[in-house]
Amino acid sequence: MAPVLRSYVSGGWHRPTGEGRPLHDAVTGAEIARISSAGIDFAAALEHGRRVGGPAVRELTFHQRAALLKALGQHLREHRERLYAVSAQTGATLGDSRFDVDGGIGVLLAYASKGRRELPNDTFYVDGAVEPLGRGGTFVGQHVCTPLHGVAVQINAFNFPVWGPLEKLAPAFLAGVPTLIKPASPTAFLTAELVELIVGSGLLPEGSLQFVAGGTGDLLDQLTEQDLVSFTGSASTAAKLRTHPTVVQRAVRFTAEADSLNLSVLGPDAAPGSAEFELFVKGVVTEMTVKAGQKCTAIRRAFVPGQHVDAVVEAVAARLARTTIGNPANEGVRMGALASLEQREEVRRSVKALADAGRIVFGDPEKVDVVDADPERGAFISPILLVGEPERAEPHEVEAFGPVSTVLPYTSTEQLIDYAARGQGSLAGSIVTADPAFARQVVLGVAPWHGRLLVLNEKDAKESTGHGSPLPALVHGGPGRAGGGEEMGGIRGVLHHMQRTAVQADPDTLTAITGRWVRGSQRTVTDVHPFRKHLEELRVGDTIVAGPRRVTQEDVEHFAEFTGDTFYAHMDADAAAANPLFGERVAHGYLVVSLAAGLFVDPDPGPVLANFGVDDLRFLTPVRFGDELTVTLTCKQLTPRDTAAYGEVRWDADVTRQDGESVARYDVLTLVAKKSAPKSAQEEG
Amino acid sequence: MAPVLRSYVSGGWHRPTGEGRPLHDAVTGAEIARISSAGIDFAAALEHGRRVGGPAVRELTFHQRAALLKALGQHLREHRERLYAVSAQTGATLGDSRFDVDGGIGVLLAYASKGRRELPNDTFYVDGAVEPLGRGGTFVGQHVCTPLHGVAVQINAFNFPVWGPLEKLAPAFLAGVPTLIKPASPTAFLTAELVELIVGSGLLPEGSLQFVAGGTGDLLDQLTEQDLVSFTGSASTAAKLRTHPTVVQRAVRFTAEADSLNLSVLGPDAAPGSAEFELFVKGVVTEMTVKAGQKCTAIRRAFVPGQHVDAVVEAVAARLARTTIGNPANEGVRMGALASLEQREEVRRSVKALADAGRIVFGDPEKVDVVDADPERGAFISPILLVGEPERAEPHEVEAFGPVSTVLPYTSTEQLIDYAARGQGSLAGSIVTADPAFARQVVLGVAPWHGRLLVLNEKDAKESTGHGSPLPALVHGGPGRAGGGEEMGGIRGVLHHMQRTAVQADPDTLTAITGRWVRGSQRTVTDVHPFRKHLEELRVGDTIVAGPRRVTQEDVEHFAEFTGDTFYAHMDADAAAANPLFGERVAHGYLVVSLAAGLFVDPDPGPVLANFGVDDLRFLTPVRFGDELTVTLTCKQLTPRDTAAYGEVRWDADVTRQDGESVARYDVLTLVAKKSAPKSAQEEG
Repeated sequence: MAPVLRSYVSGGWHRPTGEGRPLHDAVTGAEIARISSAGIDFAAALEHGRRVGGPAVRELTFHQRAALLKALGQHLREHRERLYAVSAQTGATLGDSRFDVDGGIGVLLAYASKGRRELPNDTFYVDGAVEPLGRGGTFVGQHVCTPLHGVAVQINAFNFPVWGPLEKLAPAFLAGVPTLIKPASPTAFLTAELVELIVGSGLLPEGSLQFVAGGTGDLLDQLTEQDLVSFTGSASTAAKLRTHPTVVQRAVRFTAEADSLNLSVLGPDAAPGSAEFELFVKGVVTEMTVKAGQKCTAIRRAFVPGQHVDAVVEAVAARLARTTIGNPANEGVRMGALASLEQREEVRRSVKALADAGRIVFGDPEKVDVVDADPERGAFISPILLVGEPERAEPHEVEAFGPVSTVLPYTSTEQLIDYAARGQGSLAGSIVTADPAFARQVVLGVAPWHGRLLVLNEKDAKESTGHGSPLPALVHGGPGRAGGGEEMGGIRGVLHHMQRTAVQADPDTLTAITGRWVRGSQRTVTDVHPFRKHLEELRVGDTIVAGPRRVTQEDVEHFAEFTGDTFYAHMDADAAAANPLFGERVAHGYLVVSLAAGLFVDPDPGPVLANFGVDDLRFLTPVRFGDELTVTLTCKQLTPRDTAAYGEVRWDADVTRQDGESVARYDVLTLVAKKSAPKSAQEEG
Repeated sequence: MAPVLRSYVSGGWHRPTGEGRPLHDAVTGAEIARISSAGIDFAAALEHGRRVGGPAVRELTFHQRAALLKALGQHLREHRERLYAVSAQTGATLGDSRFDVDGGIGVLLAYASKGRRELPNDTFYVDGAVEPLGRGGTFVGQHVCTPLHGVAVQINAFNFPVWGPLEKLAPAFLAGVPTLIKPASPTAFLTAELVELIVGSGLLPEGSLQFVAGGTGDLLDQLTEQDLVSFTGSASTAAKLRTHPTVVQRAVRFTAEADSLNLSVLGPDAAPGSAEFELFVKGVVTEMTVKAGQKCTAIRRAFVPGQHVDAVVEAVAARLARTTIGNPANEGVRMGALASLEQREEVRRSVKALADAGRIVFGDPEKVDVVDADPERGAFISPILLVGEPERAEPHEVEAFGPVSTVLPYTSTEQLIDYAARGQGSLAGSIVTADPAFARQVVLGVAPWHGRLLVLNEKDAKESTGHGSPLPALVHGGPGRAGGGEEMGGIRGVLHHMQRTAVQADPDTLTAITGRWVRGSQRTVTDVHPFRKHLEELRVGDTIVAGPRRVTQEDVEHFAEFTGDTFYAHMDADAAAANPLFGERVAHGYLVVSLAAGLFVDPDPGPVLANFGVDDLRFLTPVRFGDELTVTLTCKQLTPRDTAAYGEVRWDADVTRQDGESVARYDVLTLVAKKSAPKSAQEEG
């Protein structure tokens, strides 16, 4: 009997109490593992995640979590050969395995990078601007996002045993939420290998990752309002999970990524012979054959201008005919097997429904030539291309989850947009065109039904990641039939795991809560100039008030001459008088901020290394000749860098004139050295 | 027989085919209206919204929609007396009515203002930054949000017959999505009055607002993946709607705002006699008596340091004893009736459950003294204050939807946070304290269970809108028991009605799709300087390249002397050499941007009125003595103002040195005049 897969729950490896169900090699049909979750105490596992994993991850900052994701990605990259080897047993070619394994590692590294660059070095997130809630400035609001105190239960599909868990783990972990992975059984042996690598690395805090091989048992009954469920798979299972009494009663945050009749459109400009025609044909063939078409983002509907249908069919069929199918171990093989024999039966049933509403123009669902394998014992199937009738429902509704696509003719952009909507919600679409106006019309027309849209042409083809690849920086998910969920999308995917809370308070209290200086809250003017303080010594609220400096007509004229900025508002009294905003000559905005820097800067060598930028500069009131400027610079936010000898300090700058009115407000961004540099002080990538 | 309420569907007023159910005056018990949705063709109504209302709203820009919301708010404000009059029949005092009516109008006006200030003058929204997807810069991504093509079905609670529909209408309309309002029956007669005012105003495009008095019939069966359901009411109804087969199968976007055991905390610092103690007591009494406690945000759990329980009970009871209850028509009355006799039965049942786990310390649920009314025919009930046992489940789980609160003792902050979580998700909480450290600990500790948290103390009390008021700029909703939804929150509430779609393309095509110039896409250098073009003549991509200008040591020293900015990196060769980022003396960043302006500005009077700001300025590479600067200024985004003689133009500025390397990048913000001013050219508020 094949070895039984172990689960990793409640701090240890768990061997099921029963014998389990057999899992088979997709290529040879041989039994390679058995699977069962019998004996797992799901309540205890969830509680372990909440009580042990949650606190351990939440006490880390976003930057610390990001560093662990980076280390984990590097660890997996070092050991990816082990994953490729097991992946072949799922029917995957080496190319397919790279898509799955390297794709998943790429998500970890991308989130590591985004976490470091786009999130603060803190344990929670401040979302959006301070909202004034009263005219007097004593009552303000701002949103914070804090990690949910539950477990992210991730129920994954069989087609991406590595990428699937990793694309969900990365944003959950970065958010500070522990994960419980529950893969689909047919390929769970590969996910088990992945989890062994992760657990073996010792990188993630105990409890932050658990793994269940086998059924969910009473897992869902144990959920609370702090847990999340993120499901990828069939619409019918999604519906079952979504309506589970506990999920409903506790309003458990639930996202689904389900069926999808994704489209690709050949633009009217892309006639046979054009670069875009070739790209379209290549895209359709790639999406049909990579992972043997078992991709939730694969092209199911290929919309083609009526007059080009024959040419497209001919070109696609020619390429498909050249595609070698068989044992992925053979280097010449370009398309492997489906994940299981059951899956093949499912695909054959769907092809039959599609063929009833069109005609098969390439391939036979019952017959396929294979290399180095038994076409019956292995889950092999031929690529199937159909030409469909777009007025029928089937091509828009029947998803054959294999190497199957339907070519559908269209005659106008309006009709195309109408057809697109009949898919009732998709994950991904592509528009292959060199015509930006057509691209705009189709993208904005079909966007309400899509999570992601790719415009492909000669300009971006070389760098394009293709129709079917979700990317960590972009949202993955789609409305309606596609499940209505949203995953990844950069930091958005992190926030999906957090609770957004509006906080209302006086400015001082809001500053204390968020750790960021809020306008209207206390400023601390000390004897020491804040530019003389190292990062560890600076406090939010530390302030320098400097000035006044009088701005004269001579200053303005001199600055104009020196910089060349002789704009009429500064130099031409008549024209300035006619300007509806000024009424007279005024100082340059750039002069105002230059003089302000002259006032607040402490010139001597010290911990301030550089001013690397300015944000949100607004000139609020014109500065007239004779006005006297004072600047108030207040330490607003400190972002230490764990692996660098310095950190970022954001300052609030408020330039006022003699009557106290603000003439300019902005954030000054500086790098400030630490007093004690970290041992491995090095700049981050 | 009382008049039957009409619905407004499919472009006209609909009178039900049957007699309908009676609705009663909450104060007198008299029948005042009848209600039924019999005869409404719900499929036709939804299709009317989708086919007529949707296109009409979507073709408007955000600014045009905002202007209509503003006009609608003003119209309702002019006619609010009509609403107050009808509101009294719901049992509301004039104060209660203002909370409901003026609160709702306030949401319309707040969204009008936010739409104009925070959204582009365009029909869709560009979300987040451009994401580089390839190293070569030919493949980039960005998200767009487009309005869903369905109807926002808004199923509201009985307690806010005016605010309820308006707080949902405003973000939906601003998003470009038509609304169908379905109020709770007991107070639907007031919502009907509101809708009559709205329809009578003729302000909103036909089909963008429909109204159903009575049951939902087969409404939900007709939903598609493009529709939304936004529900406020009981958890049991929420569960029923959430699991409706069509909602599940089509993944209809569903938000719920349901039960909530909201807390208020008296800080350990706020001893009897302190300002905060008074604020706490006042808050509890206000939340108990406004709307007779029928507020989903009302305080149900009043957490008090053990030693202050008696003092709190005494102070609250004293105030409650002074609260006059009765007919809202009587000017002395401070608390009116519940919405219906059924509601009173419901509250009495809940009070019984709470009393079993504690004790009533004020009021008798079966007995109340009222003014100008019959205490039995009107739905009157006494305020009920309890002291509860926080280790029991009931105070955390039983919501008595009336003038009922339970005082619960706590002994430590950790214990308090644990108790708070037992509510399993709340809409709102308040912490009454003058101690910022306590505020921070409690806010961050309970945030995962809350949609909104108020910190109240002497500093913000005067301007505070109080514990129970959701505000349009802040999110309203909460996890778990509170329904798991999120409404309002400023622009967030608008985006909830839109589909976010990741768009991948080459930069030129992305620019064509979003209408915003994307780095890497074409620049158009024309003979005419872009500063000479009026708003209507400018095109995204219009570019001026100017320079070079050499930066000398003399320039830097002169600038330092002139502005006073003698920072060591510019002036001290040894100190600059020791700086890890520079290694030698460098030019001031402010000098670089000042010189760049000198290069790109066209000095003569013309359509450019002012430079009002700079965004996202980053100094990328130090400028050394002898470097030659060139600036490339490209028109990036045009925002015409419908009611002003000018609009905003955002320019991309890229300052490069002799080797082409960028030394600074930023957005320059200008106001540019229109060639033809609008008839009513006036600056906006």
